[in-house]
Amino acid sequence: MSDMTSTADTPRSPGRPRSVRADEAIIEATLDLLAEGSTVEAISIEAIAARAGVGKATIYRRWPGKEALLRDALRTLKGSPPEPTGGSVRDDLIVLVGAVGHHIDPRAARIMPCLVPAVNRSPEQYALYQNIIEPRRALMREVLRRGVRAGELRADLDVEVTMAMLTGPMLVQRVLRWHPDIDEATLPEKIVDGVLDGIRAR
Amino acid sequence: MSDMTSTADTPRSPGRPRSVRADEAIIEATLDLLAEGSTVEAISIEAIAARAGVGKATIYRRWPGKEALLRDALRTLKGSPPEPTGGSVRDDLIVLVGAVGHHIDPRAARIMPCLVPAVNRSPEQYALYQNIIEPRRALMREVLRRGVRAGELRADLDVEVTMAMLTGPMLVQRVLRWHPDIDEATLPEKIVDGVLDGIRAR
Repeated sequence: MSDMTSTADTPRSPGRPRSVRADEAIIEATLDLLAEGSTVEAISIEAIAARAGVGKATIYRRWPGKEALLRDALRTLKGSPPEPTGGSVRDDLIVLVGAVGHHIDPRAARIMPCLVPAVNRSPEQYALYQNIIEPRRALMREVLRRGVRAGELRADLDVEVTMAMLTGPMLVQRVLRWHPDIDEATLPEKIVDGVLDGIRAR
Repeated sequence: MSDMTSTADTPRSPGRPRSVRADEAIIEATLDLLAEGSTVEAISIEAIAARAGVGKATIYRRWPGKEALLRDALRTLKGSPPEPTGGSVRDDLIVLVGAVGHHIDPRAARIMPCLVPAVNRSPEQYALYQNIIEPRRALMREVLRRGVRAGELRADLDVEVTMAMLTGPMLVQRVLRWHPDIDEATLPEKIVDGVLDGIRAR
């Protein structure tokens, strides 16, 4: 919970006890409303307060506004970023690819896809989305750069395109069940080996 | 328009003129309602008829039910499948990857992502989605199989995983604008070359 409350920039009276229970109720109410079909544009602090059973002032003491609250709520859906072991580039990539599209909260499957139109319409929502995924992206970028420095990966590697090549197939399978016959458990390894070695006959 | 009406299995009185205008209005009304936020579960023949300014019977003369109408409406969003030239495997894959996530209708950007939760909840919706993408998938599968037969691609190629590897990166960039610095125009070529040759230093 510390991650959620630490981003609240509003001043807090000294000595006031933090109400973790209220924080949780507010985050839960936000996620419930989103999972039930509220768009990020339509959802309001009023509706969240009513659903959480708190006053609006309680929310504004913790978050400066709707954007900050949404960011924290959406981050809790994703859980903690994966931890690469720092072993081989291949092993680290398999860990990171395996975490793509994996959410700890089942409401994510309803919430995340419908965020896409909002993300594409609004620079603020796009920034919010980038802000949520950037910490995970940074982990993968660092593993790829390490591979280039070590001479394992091509010196002219396009790191951002390579990240899309590693992330995209996992995401379409996990989110869209792109093909019913693909086994999700072995997919990260197949993607990483495919991207490392290519599919040409040799 | 023939593609839309040809899937209507209901009998039509001989000599009755097809009302292309009504067909178009019904398809347009369906897409408008979806783009405005109606879910595929909630949308009704009643609502579509009211929006199109036709009677329900007019819809049922053309489509046996909601599923068939949705399928035709969603197909019109995607437009015609791309046409690979039958040249090199690389060139054909670039054409096919370039068409991934490309829609002729701007409402697609609002409609398609929000279909995902419905697709994941309902076997009928999943079948509808597979039915829409399968013709495009079949084109890519055939190009890959041709490459294997010609000895250009690995004999042990996992065709379905390879298709996810080619499609996924394009889809996340085009639908999610996954990374702001990636150039969509050159991405199909980069993905195809990356998947063909791999990223290892040689």
